[in-house]
Amino acid sequence: MNEDRSEVARRVAAMERLRPSRRGFMKVAAAGGAVAAFGGPDIKRALAAGENLPPNVPEWMKTLGPGVTASPYGAPSKYEKEVVRRNVGWLTASEESSINFTPIHMLEGIITPSGLCFERHHGGVPEIDPAQHRLVIHGMVARPLIFTMDDIVRFPSVSRIMFLECPANGGMEWRGAQMAGCQFTHGMVHCCEWTGVKLSTLLAEAGVAKGAKWLLAEGADAAAMTRSIPLDKALDDVIVAYAQNGERIRPEQGYPLRLMVPGWEGNVNVKWVRRIKLGDKPWHHREETSKYTDLMPDGTARQFTFVQEANSVVTFPCPERPLDGKGTYEIRGIAWSGRGKIKRVDVSLDGGDNWRSAQLQEPVLSKALVRFRLPWKWEGGPALVQSRALDETGYVQPTIEQLRKVRGVNSIYHKNAIHTWRVNPNGKIDNVQIA
Amino acid sequence: MNEDRSEVARRVAAMERLRPSRRGFMKVAAAGGAVAAFGGPDIKRALAAGENLPPNVPEWMKTLGPGVTASPYGAPSKYEKEVVRRNVGWLTASEESSINFTPIHMLEGIITPSGLCFERHHGGVPEIDPAQHRLVIHGMVARPLIFTMDDIVRFPSVSRIMFLECPANGGMEWRGAQMAGCQFTHGMVHCCEWTGVKLSTLLAEAGVAKGAKWLLAEGADAAAMTRSIPLDKALDDVIVAYAQNGERIRPEQGYPLRLMVPGWEGNVNVKWVRRIKLGDKPWHHREETSKYTDLMPDGTARQFTFVQEANSVVTFPCPERPLDGKGTYEIRGIAWSGRGKIKRVDVSLDGGDNWRSAQLQEPVLSKALVRFRLPWKWEGGPALVQSRALDETGYVQPTIEQLRKVRGVNSIYHKNAIHTWRVNPNGKIDNVQIA
Repeated sequence: MNEDRSEVARRVAAMERLRPSRRGFMKVAAAGGAVAAFGGPDIKRALAAGENLPPNVPEWMKTLGPGVTASPYGAPSKYEKEVVRRNVGWLTASEESSINFTPIHMLEGIITPSGLCFERHHGGVPEIDPAQHRLVIHGMVARPLIFTMDDIVRFPSVSRIMFLECPANGGMEWRGAQMAGCQFTHGMVHCCEWTGVKLSTLLAEAGVAKGAKWLLAEGADAAAMTRSIPLDKALDDVIVAYAQNGERIRPEQGYPLRLMVPGWEGNVNVKWVRRIKLGDKPWHHREETSKYTDLMPDGTARQFTFVQEANSVVTFPCPERPLDGKGTYEIRGIAWSGRGKIKRVDVSLDGGDNWRSAQLQEPVLSKALVRFRLPWKWEGGPALVQSRALDETGYVQPTIEQLRKVRGVNSIYHKNAIHTWRVNPNGKIDNVQIA
Repeated sequence: MNEDRSEVARRVAAMERLRPSRRGFMKVAAAGGAVAAFGGPDIKRALAAGENLPPNVPEWMKTLGPGVTASPYGAPSKYEKEVVRRNVGWLTASEESSINFTPIHMLEGIITPSGLCFERHHGGVPEIDPAQHRLVIHGMVARPLIFTMDDIVRFPSVSRIMFLECPANGGMEWRGAQMAGCQFTHGMVHCCEWTGVKLSTLLAEAGVAKGAKWLLAEGADAAAMTRSIPLDKALDDVIVAYAQNGERIRPEQGYPLRLMVPGWEGNVNVKWVRRIKLGDKPWHHREETSKYTDLMPDGTARQFTFVQEANSVVTFPCPERPLDGKGTYEIRGIAWSGRGKIKRVDVSLDGGDNWRSAQLQEPVLSKALVRFRLPWKWEGGPALVQSRALDETGYVQPTIEQLRKVRGVNSIYHKNAIHTWRVNPNGKIDNVQIA
């Protein structure tokens, strides 16, 4: 975080005004029977009310639970069964070429569990035998090479925590579809720790020919998903990844090998990658002409709009997680930028008239999700909750009006506008668009 | 990383000598039919050999795979079914009071997937209904309080990536058991991103009484697992955690609530925590007297040895992952310290006579796993591979002889000695102890 001292001082002062002080908490608690601002009830009152609580002994303390052979590979509690990826049936013609969404409204921190990372497929999930999988590097290279998985894993490797976002994230909101929840407005994003070999390392093996400027990456799925990527980016920070959150990549995320292109739209992060061809110009394949271009108001299309610009969303409160009466809460959300580090996230409670800077959870990593938090005392009135991300390049997340003015309403992709949740006096939250 | 420039320069130079240069790779590749140092075979040769490889079309590209409703909560590929937690049958009398081990030899980076985090139970895994779970804070406090899960989650929260290690990690090696693999010698460790409320925040609500110096934390399992913790630590960085790697904590890791005590031995990170009592001295409960004390040569026992000192292990090569013929490899491993950041990891290939500093993967976080890497050209001879971690306090991981000299061989706990893998000319790796 590079900021001048006065800005830090201003922000700390603003936080102090908002944050319930220790003394404040004590005063509330000392007031007697009333529930503390954040805290639970006094224990004597709870016991008098007959609650089954410690120091009483719950049923599950009276019998031995399962031991260490019960689940060689663990799973969430049965009480968390609603925390899953969800899709929208009407969105595409078939579910093999569709999307489901990360339940970001139920997640904390910055790591997305691999089992909950959103999926976007173009021909379903291939079941690949890693012993048979090969990666070919060919085209404008000195020596076309072919690698087994064992070859790849043996190379010097790197790990990086980074977000991955589908450019269609929020796309249903362009014209005001107003999906009913945070999972659907912003859930085409996840953030994992990826490990693999820098593509520059493999290209050094093959020897890049003079004049090569682009590469084609092809996946081993039924769609042979294919994208053109500038060689500059490939030599900068692209990773041929074999692991995700410590273990080998999940099938639906590209097992056994995925091209990870930090900060760039999800579909260029080609899953199940089996072929990289070098050339002197882009290939203009299906998924970079008929799809993944941005249709402008004048009928032309922006092509190769790779970078996912700064974006953010408040994940609590949100339509799926209403407020439970007046009192003090912590507003929480995630922010990210495909251009580098998030520098600041501002939060508004009045639809953008006033802004306060949120606290960013360290470590703030480049091209990764950042968790932001801001304490808020809700007095029970209506509110319009927004977040606005700023990144280290100086880019500021735009309003939907600013975005429409430049891009019109034809596009599906790259909607990163400031989003608004309306808090109703009953605590329920609506997804709204305000001018 | 705080280091002076000359140290950095020295280390960079050392790395350069070892690292296969780009030119080096090309020379090998250009030599013709030979397999490159790291790389795969020339594509023409592979095709001539009849390999089923790109640009051929594998079977899984010819049919649509499952779509986006197939797995609302994902799972690893069936080809990874050997990457699981494993236990050792003879270790304890019952599997409800036993341990299984993280497959660290198959993991990359620093994040451990929640499903693979080692387990240590004292009465099995309770199946807790979060709606019925309560946390009580009582004893030497101004106001005993009781919290529901909703109360806890509503508090200002923090996230932290940190390791957790059982003090018995490596314990079977004290007297030279020489377990057959890295999973069993060092697999009682994991590293996740945990989210929760600082315990200091909850204690401020309850109001710490004058004279309080310790707390007792009790779990809601059939063992009512209970430990005493100094209040200073509780007010420093202890977290009452409700989330692990983004989602709610897994049942076997403490669902729905776990005390996370950064850098301290695993058992004080009380799972299923339901009660925190403040007092002026420790309680001397079962698990801090008959267990979790270190029996010294003179028959006395060290008690309350909380901190997990700096430790490290090479996870590749290791007994489960032998070398596949002469050539260039990347030695990989993990290091950690309960006292703060890892400053440096040295690797020896000759049993400790000579050391080279490994590359540390950024970000290097305090009290978290750190991934280290070092390129190595194996000429096919015998080698004794070791790693040695140094932390920011100046602590250096000891040899087994140094440790035995001070602590004898009676103890099960806190073995953090430098570990040795012997590389045999056939590439197989043995677990050995050398003087």
